[in-house]
Amino acid sequence: MTDLMKKFQLTDGFLGHYQKLAKDVVIPYQERVLHDQVEGAEKSHAIENFRAAAQMLREGKVDEEFYGMVFQDSDIYKWLEAAAYSLHHYPDPELEAHCDEIVEMLGSAQHPDGYINTYFTVKEPDKRWVNLQEGHELYCAGHLIEAAVAYADITGKKRILDITLKFVDHIYDYFVTQGIAGVPGHPEIELALMRLYHFAERQEDLELAVHFIDERGLDSDYFVKERQKNPWTVWGADAQDKAYTQVHLPVREQTEAVGHAVRAAYLYTGMADAALVTGDESLKQACQTLWHNITERKMYVTGAIGSVYEGEAFSSSWHLPNDTAYAEGCASIALIFFARQMLELELNSKYADVMERALYNTVLADMQLDGTRFFYVNPLESVPGISGVAKSHLHALPVRPKWFACACCPPNVARLLSSLGKYAWSVKDTTVYSHLFIDGKLDLRASHGAKIIVDSEQPYGGKVSYRFEADNKSAPMTLAVRMPEWSAHTEIALNGSQIEYRTENGYALIERSFADGDEIIVSLDLSIRRIYTNDKVSANSGRTAFARGALIYCAEGVDNNGAVLDLFVDRNLSYTETEHEQLPGVIKLTVTGYRSVGGDSLYSYERPLLERQMIDLVPYYTWSNRGATQMRVWLPEA
Amino acid sequence: MTDLMKKFQLTDGFLGHYQKLAKDVVIPYQERVLHDQVEGAEKSHAIENFRAAAQMLREGKVDEEFYGMVFQDSDIYKWLEAAAYSLHHYPDPELEAHCDEIVEMLGSAQHPDGYINTYFTVKEPDKRWVNLQEGHELYCAGHLIEAAVAYADITGKKRILDITLKFVDHIYDYFVTQGIAGVPGHPEIELALMRLYHFAERQEDLELAVHFIDERGLDSDYFVKERQKNPWTVWGADAQDKAYTQVHLPVREQTEAVGHAVRAAYLYTGMADAALVTGDESLKQACQTLWHNITERKMYVTGAIGSVYEGEAFSSSWHLPNDTAYAEGCASIALIFFARQMLELELNSKYADVMERALYNTVLADMQLDGTRFFYVNPLESVPGISGVAKSHLHALPVRPKWFACACCPPNVARLLSSLGKYAWSVKDTTVYSHLFIDGKLDLRASHGAKIIVDSEQPYGGKVSYRFEADNKSAPMTLAVRMPEWSAHTEIALNGSQIEYRTENGYALIERSFADGDEIIVSLDLSIRRIYTNDKVSANSGRTAFARGALIYCAEGVDNNGAVLDLFVDRNLSYTETEHEQLPGVIKLTVTGYRSVGGDSLYSYERPLLERQMIDLVPYYTWSNRGATQMRVWLPEA
Repeated sequence: MTDLMKKFQLTDGFLGHYQKLAKDVVIPYQERVLHDQVEGAEKSHAIENFRAAAQMLREGKVDEEFYGMVFQDSDIYKWLEAAAYSLHHYPDPELEAHCDEIVEMLGSAQHPDGYINTYFTVKEPDKRWVNLQEGHELYCAGHLIEAAVAYADITGKKRILDITLKFVDHIYDYFVTQGIAGVPGHPEIELALMRLYHFAERQEDLELAVHFIDERGLDSDYFVKERQKNPWTVWGADAQDKAYTQVHLPVREQTEAVGHAVRAAYLYTGMADAALVTGDESLKQACQTLWHNITERKMYVTGAIGSVYEGEAFSSSWHLPNDTAYAEGCASIALIFFARQMLELELNSKYADVMERALYNTVLADMQLDGTRFFYVNPLESVPGISGVAKSHLHALPVRPKWFACACCPPNVARLLSSLGKYAWSVKDTTVYSHLFIDGKLDLRASHGAKIIVDSEQPYGGKVSYRFEADNKSAPMTLAVRMPEWSAHTEIALNGSQIEYRTENGYALIERSFADGDEIIVSLDLSIRRIYTNDKVSANSGRTAFARGALIYCAEGVDNNGAVLDLFVDRNLSYTETEHEQLPGVIKLTVTGYRSVGGDSLYSYERPLLERQMIDLVPYYTWSNRGATQMRVWLPEA
Repeated sequence: MTDLMKKFQLTDGFLGHYQKLAKDVVIPYQERVLHDQVEGAEKSHAIENFRAAAQMLREGKVDEEFYGMVFQDSDIYKWLEAAAYSLHHYPDPELEAHCDEIVEMLGSAQHPDGYINTYFTVKEPDKRWVNLQEGHELYCAGHLIEAAVAYADITGKKRILDITLKFVDHIYDYFVTQGIAGVPGHPEIELALMRLYHFAERQEDLELAVHFIDERGLDSDYFVKERQKNPWTVWGADAQDKAYTQVHLPVREQTEAVGHAVRAAYLYTGMADAALVTGDESLKQACQTLWHNITERKMYVTGAIGSVYEGEAFSSSWHLPNDTAYAEGCASIALIFFARQMLELELNSKYADVMERALYNTVLADMQLDGTRFFYVNPLESVPGISGVAKSHLHALPVRPKWFACACCPPNVARLLSSLGKYAWSVKDTTVYSHLFIDGKLDLRASHGAKIIVDSEQPYGGKVSYRFEADNKSAPMTLAVRMPEWSAHTEIALNGSQIEYRTENGYALIERSFADGDEIIVSLDLSIRRIYTNDKVSANSGRTAFARGALIYCAEGVDNNGAVLDLFVDRNLSYTETEHEQLPGVIKLTVTGYRSVGGDSLYSYERPLLERQMIDLVPYYTWSNRGATQMRVWLPEA
């Protein structure tokens, strides 16, 4: 997939803007945060932790203590991975020099046996591998692996790979060769090892990934026993809560997505990759079952997952509260990873539909439009005075903070936005699958004899052009274009004339010997659509949400005289679309509806009067960029 | 008020049945629980704790350790108070003998200086008064005082009063005479001391109550300093959460009901009583402001309060989630206390309306119809598979357990049901106020020259008869009958002829020299009414609830083919009323509506079809008596 990213150069479209924003703002901003240079932001200390670890290894003592979460190192790894992707698109010797310095810093914090983790080097040197449930050593190792693969792949520099492989070999030796029991408390390393395997093609990395996947849940009491063996804990997590860490069952027997949503989706991603490589059918089936459970029972309409704060976790099927939603940014990113990996297993547009849904809605919403502030939690309803204030809503902030003590989301967004090309395409034999409609140039000259230039109006416009630049006379291939589930009528034209097309698994197949200059134009239907939820979802009874193409809309108080909780949407709707006065380039929907007019009393025997009221809706990803006002995705109908 | 209870003998009507149930089932059942004799119920150990405390005082050691909450003693006190009230209505030498034994047991657990608390006697002998925030010593003392007043008043026996006054004198000496700073972490003793003052008329008891009220919040850091002084804690409560214990502000400056709902409402009850006795206008105004904030911003339609699990607490104004509601039984009982006390300050029917709402809905719902199982939490929506299961819903059980480790609610229900007469009436000079329409005989011969025999069809029927038995020729008085806010048209007849009446502060005033045999018949309008919530309450957008008289109704799956989340009520409603087939004496409403018919998918672009469907509704207090099925109070309209 990195290969496809490298072949796809984004141009200055909607998502190209985000990739550039990642380079111009997000990555430099986060670098400054990691160096504790941003005033008013939560302290990171991640770089300092590495300096301390290096000093500890050199001198056996530290001037400055470790600070931060047990997984603080991963912030640097994710940032480094983001920077690596960005360097591919925007070569930047200065940034690369910074990255090289960090790589050296990692090396200087590496133990002679290969082990790297600043928390356990500086703060708890005798607790290495003692508490896999909470220790996050394998999680951090996973992120290091991902960064290493990205950085080595993009820059061609091997130093980080050498460091990382030494660590991976140490892990392999410990868990496989020595056969010491253990599973990662926070899955991540599985998907990372698979990425490493694809990149470095070492059999041991595949073996180690499969080992961790196969071991998981075989002994559902593993963490209980671990705690009995050594009662030392990081924050006293409940070892009996087996579903939280997905060790309640062997992974092939897991049919319901449970527990910490990020852990779950990272795990499933690794499982799907392993199933692909090993051809393990039972693993593939488990992935398909879990996918269905997530997307048909436990996913918000914004592509967010993990609906409860307690455990940042999946809840029961159909339990999707809007205002208390956890809906972590990282979880949607993990869902995108899972979806992308499922596409490798099975080219079906349903996976790409979800990838798009999560990307355009939750992931983009996770970040302020200017790239400098981030949500962690992405609720579907926000009420100032309750959100972020009520004890049940402390997690559901109405405005994005500058940084977090637990800063997993911001660098995760950065690495995703810097590697969008990975998610846009699949190539299978002579077929080129276009999953996401992103402006850019896909260079398949070496394999398919053509470049494909995508000129996309998405997400606000419905036209997507695929223009072929064929070096030779023609390039025979099948272009498979995703027919998004939201487009009721999709038309395809070749060089200006509409063509018939065959659809397979949600992709329109255009098989042709493409000539230089050939142009396919796909016209997607962007009529706004109302979405209804299964009646089993209590929070959305009688309510509807709006989508225009891939974008889910919401009503914000700032556009609607301050309040939205009293708005009702017209069942017999009409609407207009205009560019938003305050949000350049954003299309605002104005729909017919009502405002309920009641008194000050809490209860009344009179149904409040409904007054005609036009309701302004904006894309969900833009919410809370103009101060904290009420926000609602699911609006009642009247 | 105890005086009015003693003068009012309930007869065998709707609430008379509950008072009898309290005697026949609830009180004996709870006595067995306190003695750890109920199989399958949570262990109480409350009696054993007293035995252990007595042994500790006798022998300086214990055979058996303390078990239970730091406030476990209060379960016995509340039970004893309930038993005392019950003994008034149903003299029972055996029960009284048991009570006397318990009184002796209390005495044997009393320290020479008067102090009583089994937790601190047995388990933490050197922590007395060290942690007022969590220690509950003054809370338990308060419940002892209430029990003592009730038992001494009803039985005329002074032993418990002697024990209690010795303890109270000890408290007075410590906090007033010695002037050691301190406020109760859990208010309760304030209202109890006021009750003691009314009963025993000792000035020191009033002084001590006012002391605790006045001290509260003067130093909002009191608990923080207490913790700094001695870091010993019971369960590590956050001393910085000042609102939780209502010490954030001096009580006269408190305008919003915040923190732990039971603490708050007990405190306000004590404040209202103190304001009455001392004539303190600023205290009275604080009570009125807090009352308004509760009932017009933070009260469920069932009269439940405290909407969040976290801290069992009031949330922000307008935040009234249905499925995660805390809505503790004790909190509604405390609200009834507060309401009753406000009636002493200001005879306005709004207080009695809330008293009735909380009693007929939350308090009755708190107990299984047969009196043997209890809720702690009373949600307004329940979904098996989510309620009691999802991590955000662990508190919101779909069925009543037999008992609780924290067993505050069951004996609180028992003492309320055994003393209903307190809440039914007020007498002010020549005016007799009828707040609640309870069958019974009010003996006012001594003061007003008549007995009033109430024959009430309430809550299911609208007719309430007040028949006068005047010893002499006539009894001049004003009968003030509450005009309940739910009765749209109320008619009053005297001896069969309708009369005009004047209404003052929500009471119809019937001034007359009542002759023997005179009969006032009040005809209340029981037409069902739909209730709508202020639009600021997000959970209830587009939804309506049903009331018939004082009873709030709900839809339960057991009456509606298993599911209610897919039911919509007809905006143009018609309905029938019939006796419920499975719930004797209960009137069921059958209203016109729809069932939404959708597929299995989580989301759809099609609005689900609505099929005509009659919807059965039952009174909220009867829910979950026929197994766990979906339940909803607030139904969407279509």
